[in-house]
Amino acid sequence: MRMSTLFSRTLREAPNGADCKGYEYLLRAGFIRQMGAGIFSLLPFGFNATRKIEKVIREEMNAIGGQEILMPLVNPADIWKETGRFYSIDKEMSRFQDRGGRDMVLAMTHEECVTDVARGEIDSYKRLPQLVYQIQTKWRDDPRPRAGLIRVREFTMKDSYSFDRDQEGLDAVYADHYKAYFRIFSRCGLPVIVVGADSGMMGGKISHEYMYLSPIGEDTIITCPECGYTANRQVATFSKEYYTEEMKPTEKVLTPDCKTIEDLCAFLKIEKRQTAKAVFMVGTFINAENGEEQEKLIVGVIRGDMDVEENKLQNAAKANSLRPAHVEEILAGGMVPGFGSPIGAHKDVLVIVDDSVAKSNNLVAGANEEGYHLLNTNFERDYSGMVADIASATSGYTCPTCKGSLVSSKGVEVGNIFQLGTRYSESMNCYFQDVDGVRRPVIMGSYGIGVGRMLACLAENFNDDKGLALPITVAPYQVHLVSLVKDIEVGEKIYKDLSDSGIEVLFDDRKESAGVKFADADLIGLPIRITVGNRSLKEGKVEVKLRSNLEETLSYDLENIVGEIKELIEKLTSDINNNVVEKDWVKA
Amino acid sequence: MRMSTLFSRTLREAPNGADCKGYEYLLRAGFIRQMGAGIFSLLPFGFNATRKIEKVIREEMNAIGGQEILMPLVNPADIWKETGRFYSIDKEMSRFQDRGGRDMVLAMTHEECVTDVARGEIDSYKRLPQLVYQIQTKWRDDPRPRAGLIRVREFTMKDSYSFDRDQEGLDAVYADHYKAYFRIFSRCGLPVIVVGADSGMMGGKISHEYMYLSPIGEDTIITCPECGYTANRQVATFSKEYYTEEMKPTEKVLTPDCKTIEDLCAFLKIEKRQTAKAVFMVGTFINAENGEEQEKLIVGVIRGDMDVEENKLQNAAKANSLRPAHVEEILAGGMVPGFGSPIGAHKDVLVIVDDSVAKSNNLVAGANEEGYHLLNTNFERDYSGMVADIASATSGYTCPTCKGSLVSSKGVEVGNIFQLGTRYSESMNCYFQDVDGVRRPVIMGSYGIGVGRMLACLAENFNDDKGLALPITVAPYQVHLVSLVKDIEVGEKIYKDLSDSGIEVLFDDRKESAGVKFADADLIGLPIRITVGNRSLKEGKVEVKLRSNLEETLSYDLENIVGEIKELIEKLTSDINNNVVEKDWVKA
Repeated sequence: MRMSTLFSRTLREAPNGADCKGYEYLLRAGFIRQMGAGIFSLLPFGFNATRKIEKVIREEMNAIGGQEILMPLVNPADIWKETGRFYSIDKEMSRFQDRGGRDMVLAMTHEECVTDVARGEIDSYKRLPQLVYQIQTKWRDDPRPRAGLIRVREFTMKDSYSFDRDQEGLDAVYADHYKAYFRIFSRCGLPVIVVGADSGMMGGKISHEYMYLSPIGEDTIITCPECGYTANRQVATFSKEYYTEEMKPTEKVLTPDCKTIEDLCAFLKIEKRQTAKAVFMVGTFINAENGEEQEKLIVGVIRGDMDVEENKLQNAAKANSLRPAHVEEILAGGMVPGFGSPIGAHKDVLVIVDDSVAKSNNLVAGANEEGYHLLNTNFERDYSGMVADIASATSGYTCPTCKGSLVSSKGVEVGNIFQLGTRYSESMNCYFQDVDGVRRPVIMGSYGIGVGRMLACLAENFNDDKGLALPITVAPYQVHLVSLVKDIEVGEKIYKDLSDSGIEVLFDDRKESAGVKFADADLIGLPIRITVGNRSLKEGKVEVKLRSNLEETLSYDLENIVGEIKELIEKLTSDINNNVVEKDWVKA
Repeated sequence: MRMSTLFSRTLREAPNGADCKGYEYLLRAGFIRQMGAGIFSLLPFGFNATRKIEKVIREEMNAIGGQEILMPLVNPADIWKETGRFYSIDKEMSRFQDRGGRDMVLAMTHEECVTDVARGEIDSYKRLPQLVYQIQTKWRDDPRPRAGLIRVREFTMKDSYSFDRDQEGLDAVYADHYKAYFRIFSRCGLPVIVVGADSGMMGGKISHEYMYLSPIGEDTIITCPECGYTANRQVATFSKEYYTEEMKPTEKVLTPDCKTIEDLCAFLKIEKRQTAKAVFMVGTFINAENGEEQEKLIVGVIRGDMDVEENKLQNAAKANSLRPAHVEEILAGGMVPGFGSPIGAHKDVLVIVDDSVAKSNNLVAGANEEGYHLLNTNFERDYSGMVADIASATSGYTCPTCKGSLVSSKGVEVGNIFQLGTRYSESMNCYFQDVDGVRRPVIMGSYGIGVGRMLACLAENFNDDKGLALPITVAPYQVHLVSLVKDIEVGEKIYKDLSDSGIEVLFDDRKESAGVKFADADLIGLPIRITVGNRSLKEGKVEVKLRSNLEETLSYDLENIVGEIKELIEKLTSDINNNVVEKDWVKA
């Protein structure tokens, strides 16, 4: 590619809205352009890099037996009504009516689609197992698009779907993905960790997320540096201490101006762990059959030394979504904000009690009366409710596995794998006749990788104060050829020779100054740079630099240039491929 | 690929709705599956074939300097409002509001998108010309999806867009596409003809369509077998004879029961060419600035020996759409259905007169009075209006170029090329500073190929009573290997040897009867079939057949099989590549 004819241009300044370094550079180098909130175009560099990522994904998916297909983005709503997700997914899923007035949805994932196809193809155990995948456009109306391709509304995703006879089959293909994903990310140069995760709207039980650790991430990951325990905070557990003692009688005490746990503890001269605090939420519950919505007040009760993890609370409540309750809603539930507890709450309030509270005694809790608290409240004696782990893990807490100290970090989810089980096959009647003649629902799994998000994370991980420095396996071109001499012929010959031998070259043949050309080369950041300059040319040489080490200049004979560059490309490539992460899933 | 693990299955019966042979076979062979009206999934065979078509397209687009990009399907409506097409395109374009209440559209084409991107990249003549393309998903809410992938709602399209300084530049890139398209279609084996076409909703002046001629097509193509003149009937012209004579005075005559031209001619003992007939339509005119719609009654007047071509009438009227007028609307316009003419019509009726009428004298026309006609009406003396060619060409009419006899045939449009000019750059402010310092609008072109429709046409063109017989350049695999012997090892070895040498093999390793395997092989129709059978195996041979000639059986030594098959593939491939159509565009 010649820079003189390149469609995209580089930008000297970061455009408005570039809220992280990787995004800024992808914009400035001309990889991507924004069209609207969370909507982007890939320009030639971005397209090339994406195509390389996709090639790696295809190779690894094919290696585990994946068959590539392509399903539609626009789906008839009927199949989404079959599983109930037409109703249970909120505004994230965009809908419209076609000219005939039929409900259509823009698919944000393809469990419904693929199950609809599979039920036509799979009738017998003889046709199992199956694994299909697609690399396809999706739309998700994210309320807060940000950070360029990190959080978008339209995106390209690799999604695969497995179909098995039994759990053993699902475990095997799940393990295949677990391993293949590490290979995919590491072949592209992206460091990731795998974390135990919540299944969320997907249903199913076991799931993992692949996280690129970065302060720009919005996911919180809890890890144990000692034993390697990792989980998304949404589901991370930790080892809790319980404080049991003999139950004492409840006593109402005046606690003026004690609106926070800190105030209360200072006033009563107790520790936070001796209190129970209440969190008031309203859950939405959707009837999957007809889409009818119902709201319910939920009170989560947790010990004062911990916080409620909303996702756990939502899962425990089996709610479709949660929102903070309004003051009037809390009062209507028989509780008083600031001095609230489930004691005396109306019976239609859903009470969910963390085990830290259930297993501790004599906690101070709100008296549901302005200015008053109750001493010595005890679960089951004074109030009842569902017991669940609804506590949020954080740094310093104790590892649930090895008793080490947990660490909290930020990450971006670039892939996920789910064991769906029969959630979709049962609701959509995707059954097969087993070897014993019995009809059984197919056991499914679902596996995703965000292609554009991978590019964004790579850009975030590989940059410096001059621009991008993407790994050779994903850079849009391998070589940046900069001609600084008046006579373009030498550059033209190198361009032709390299291109003819299959090397991908971006040739800066523009009539620009050396300063402009180098600044652009630094910004675009192709791994290998060849500079054709007057001085070295006199000695029959050209200068070569690696983008990853601009300090060092290599000098190659002009006549050996093709061979030398080939060797360099091979070296850079094998540096990455020799470090491919091989990691197996061990079923708990 | 092993058939024992293939995701798709073959179907013995044609599913409901398979309204043409190609569609039926694509379904039965497992290339595609329908998800809803005009919505399909590509299963592995369909995906493979499509990928091959796309590879050919990419090679030819890259060869003419195209840079591949990817633009979003979901567009903010704002850019479509800039060009006015948010208003002027009707229900074919689906719209929805995002969660923030902003208008969004599902892009059916990308002139707005690409112009939005280009205006950010192109500022100077130094950055011109440019040519970008994408292979991307589109949605068009077609009112009548049919014939499988021939007429769908969601589809994959290659669309390219050119940006030039001047008309010469546009002509050059237009000519490049004209030629590249012939290469693309012929490399895939699809016979096409190119026809002059209407620009329709795209704007612009010059345009061509590439047509696959077939009775299943919905476009009518007018060709002259003598000189090669071709055009879509929507714009086809022909040589008209005019009948001039001295004007006679108008005379009202009673013409009872003469509701048709035939009745009238029989009653008056005249020829059809001596009459003028009126066609009443209502046109919708949309204000591109604000979307306001206005309706207007249009009367098209044509000589009785011809018919009105609605598309020409709409273009002449500059209407956004046309529909037949209701009786009340015609009456309100001062005309009487069955006995109507523009003579005495209200002055707000838009009168469009074909030149056949304008240049002939003394025609019989309706008197706008039930039961009466007027003899000797003459345009300009008795009524006025706009003169335009609104006549529909058909078989037997005279070629406009060589006076040969025109022929009408049916075709499917698989590609189109448009000279857009400044239609989009002006309305979207995509200007560049020219060498003389003057800011000028970029001159654009737009060029499309329907990828899925190409596959559908190939399936339609290459089949027989047993199934598909796709050309080797687009077949999902090159070789179908059928093992009929109990010991699968020979088949396994051939499968491995062929695959290792880069040959694409579908291996029927199932435990099925020879009859089932052959029927499936015929149906899927891969170009080369190898049969491993007991009889020939004893002599160290395998049987080879070409799908295009099942009568002939070749016998190859087992030990030379890789070399022999390679040679066969090369021969079949070069048979196609030696017949690549090279055709240049000659500007009129």
